[in-house]
Amino acid sequence: MSESFLLHPVLSADTLPIATLPVSELLLMNDARFPWCILVPQLPGLTEWHHLPAEARLPFFDEMDRVSRCLLALPGITKINVGALGNRVPQLHVHVVGRHPADAAWPGPVWGSGAAVPYEAAKARELLDAIGSGIG
Amino acid sequence: MSESFLLHPVLSADTLPIATLPVSELLLMNDARFPWCILVPQLPGLTEWHHLPAEARLPFFDEMDRVSRCLLALPGITKINVGALGNRVPQLHVHVVGRHPADAAWPGPVWGSGAAVPYEAAKARELLDAIGSGIG
Repeated sequence: MSESFLLHPVLSADTLPIATLPVSELLLMNDARFPWCILVPQLPGLTEWHHLPAEARLPFFDEMDRVSRCLLALPGITKINVGALGNRVPQLHVHVVGRHPADAAWPGPVWGSGAAVPYEAAKARELLDAIGSGIG
Repeated sequence: MSESFLLHPVLSADTLPIATLPVSELLLMNDARFPWCILVPQLPGLTEWHHLPAEARLPFFDEMDRVSRCLLALPGITKINVGALGNRVPQLHVHVVGRHPADAAWPGPVWGSGAAVPYEAAKARELLDAIGSGIG
């Protein structure tokens, strides 16, 4: 019996769903301090980025590319930060974060930068729509 | 006249060279707290990971894969962290870091985790050799 993909409960609790892409679930971190997406390849058992199977590598890169361009199209965003850590949540997930020099953690990383500030519903809706439609 | 690739002086100052790979310069961060490699695609003008041209994407992933496996082969290393930030140094560079639950920053990120501890020469040599030969 093959193992099936299930989103890790911590990722599920910390994020809002944006879209299901060919390789990944695309999520929005529920932290209004940063436009912060997470791509979770929908393959069971992956814990490291380099474990991504050969046939998924280019499509996954394309998804990272599209998310990066969506975030750079948001007002004020000038830089993308990408990271795959997994020290707390083992399921492979890749952070793609829009940054700018006046944000709450600049020039440091968003990881370990303090407590998340949940979105107000209207602001979350607006951002989910902007990214969801931008991703095409 | 085409621009040529030059390693950013901050990356040059903070690292020790390991190898020149097909896509990237492979560097070792001079910080004995973590086995911490940096891959710098040898293409001028890149600042974001998603700017990597289509033909370099799979070969670059292969280099990230090989470096990750080398680091996981080092004693005690149990996890890889990958990151591309560039908030301080604009030249595209991808960090590939070997981590373990007793290291100096666990479970936080290595970026922003305090001052680097330079290697003793013999230890640096040993690690450069291990990674340089492991990378093939």
